[in-house]
Amino acid sequence: MAWTMTPEHISNLARGAAVFGTGGGGDPYIGALLARQALNRHGDVAMVSVDEVPQDATIVMVAMMGAPTVMVEKLPSFDEVIGPVRAIEPFLDGPVTHIACAEVGGVNSTIPIVAAAALGLPLIDGDAMGRAFPELQMVLPTLSGVSATPLAFADDKGNTGVLNTVDNQWAERIARVACVEMGCSIMLSLFPQPGAQLRDTMVRDSLTACLRVGEAIAAARDANEDPVARAVHLLAGRDLFAGKVVDVERATTTGFARGSARIQGELGVLELSFQNEHLMAVLDGAVLVTTPDLIMVLEHDSGEPITTEGLRYGQRVRVISAPSDERWHSPAALALVGPAYFGYDVPSRRYDGAVEHTKTGVPV
Amino acid sequence: MAWTMTPEHISNLARGAAVFGTGGGGDPYIGALLARQALNRHGDVAMVSVDEVPQDATIVMVAMMGAPTVMVEKLPSFDEVIGPVRAIEPFLDGPVTHIACAEVGGVNSTIPIVAAAALGLPLIDGDAMGRAFPELQMVLPTLSGVSATPLAFADDKGNTGVLNTVDNQWAERIARVACVEMGCSIMLSLFPQPGAQLRDTMVRDSLTACLRVGEAIAAARDANEDPVARAVHLLAGRDLFAGKVVDVERATTTGFARGSARIQGELGVLELSFQNEHLMAVLDGAVLVTTPDLIMVLEHDSGEPITTEGLRYGQRVRVISAPSDERWHSPAALALVGPAYFGYDVPSRRYDGAVEHTKTGVPV
Repeated sequence: MAWTMTPEHISNLARGAAVFGTGGGGDPYIGALLARQALNRHGDVAMVSVDEVPQDATIVMVAMMGAPTVMVEKLPSFDEVIGPVRAIEPFLDGPVTHIACAEVGGVNSTIPIVAAAALGLPLIDGDAMGRAFPELQMVLPTLSGVSATPLAFADDKGNTGVLNTVDNQWAERIARVACVEMGCSIMLSLFPQPGAQLRDTMVRDSLTACLRVGEAIAAARDANEDPVARAVHLLAGRDLFAGKVVDVERATTTGFARGSARIQGELGVLELSFQNEHLMAVLDGAVLVTTPDLIMVLEHDSGEPITTEGLRYGQRVRVISAPSDERWHSPAALALVGPAYFGYDVPSRRYDGAVEHTKTGVPV
Repeated sequence: MAWTMTPEHISNLARGAAVFGTGGGGDPYIGALLARQALNRHGDVAMVSVDEVPQDATIVMVAMMGAPTVMVEKLPSFDEVIGPVRAIEPFLDGPVTHIACAEVGGVNSTIPIVAAAALGLPLIDGDAMGRAFPELQMVLPTLSGVSATPLAFADDKGNTGVLNTVDNQWAERIARVACVEMGCSIMLSLFPQPGAQLRDTMVRDSLTACLRVGEAIAAARDANEDPVARAVHLLAGRDLFAGKVVDVERATTTGFARGSARIQGELGVLELSFQNEHLMAVLDGAVLVTTPDLIMVLEHDSGEPITTEGLRYGQRVRVISAPSDERWHSPAALALVGPAYFGYDVPSRRYDGAVEHTKTGVPV
């Protein structure tokens, strides 16, 4: 359903996106500031559902690449956000007609709003993951054989580039080293797609879903109910753990914020492993949930999502989990985003604790 | 003067280019093989002097970027050589009309011949350095404010990219990290220039100069004369040292072949420091010559140039030096390519031993 994004939507949208972002994507407060400013300056943004997009539309995703630890200190200008969209157009059959989100997650749900507002283009109510992942090839379109390139990038200094690569892993590799060299935070325009193709490759209505989760958390708080329980209910997920953050290890290496956090609670000690996003939750040595299902950390009482770079010693938190888009559970998808890809030598485990098996019965 | 490059020119040209290449640019034998094959397959190449190029011509330089240690093991295909030229054309006002060399040096003197032959375009008898340097911004056009971008790159797998950067140092930085990620050897097309501009920014007749030096070394050998003395005479340079290589340290780091070599002779021990190219010659602690002047290592008897990656324990060698293009001696040029840029904390010293001073009398 078509709707209009106004500045009033932004804070709930950003909060919900930070929940779906599973710790990644940067500070939702920063992303919200930018989006609100863009809507105030350029006017509201028309939201178009995936099924409403004309067959001959030309859609590109807009995203920020880099370490969230750096992103929050180096906000992009409007010019920097729209630069890559302009840089990619000469390589397309026609002008870009719609902007889309690559992921839902703090900054990468709100940066496309900035692009759509500044360019006066409609924004797709959907994204390419239904969550956030740390590398650019980790989107459902990759599983459908859609190329990430032509891909354009731009930094804050005015440097731009356009890549055409033989596969999406190479787009990630080259863009990532450029990103690191350019200061660990660049703007991207990528995955150009025709409208006709979009229906099979995107997650529908995910910005609406973010908005609903953000609203629910705020409403529960206002009603003195448990915001975390409300979020778990809306996400059809489960409560994993409650406790206090007792240890956070974090390093910004090769362009990512990698690390782990230990949370002490009544049930024991939960260890969260992350690479921009939370990828694995282990309770006293037992794997509870892994990527691709969602692992989120929320503030204990307020239900506010906490990003991986926002984790601090002493925080009282709740850890929850929710199912990812079902397409993330195919063997090809698990090869792309399962725990093994990130170096965790465990089978993939769903939000409800079920171990993923391939057709042959071997854990993938 | 216009002339025609035929397969018969290649071996002398490659030998002379390896002399001017001051140790960099990869194995001249490999480069010669490629160029000869291209001329045999596609026909001779028309050579055009800098002064003959039409004002409205569009010239791009073609070069290989990477560590010579890798280049010699990973030869580019014809498609890979012409790919970046095609990739850059949409960003130019018209089609490319002439190919030019960025430097004279093993592979980077012969790769542009391959591109010119395969594309059926004339090649400029000139280059942008009059020698070889390890980084792409280290060309005379940079000193004239000419942008290295749009710059296109391509690897052996089919990945391509086009950069537009705010300065040539950024072009180097981003292309270099991409190069390292893509396997330490990529093809570039860069420094697009109109013919009207070429006259002020290039070194004239440098391919002819390579040919003359290569021929002179071969002729001296045939006449049982000293090939090294003949080369020194032609280059208006001087004999620095003769001895035996007793130590070579070499590491391929951040995309360069860095290291040093020690040569023992009657005068003492000469230490050569290199980063793809020879950059400094020190005799028992006294600096004899530094970049930007040329330092070359030739085989003692045959006068064959030895590249930095070809240096081996036990080789009997002659080390010679020659003046660089005078434009490399301005303060701005010395900031770009002087010893300090490469991390050697010494004033620049000319081939004849004179120390470079700025206008204020302070060594630069």
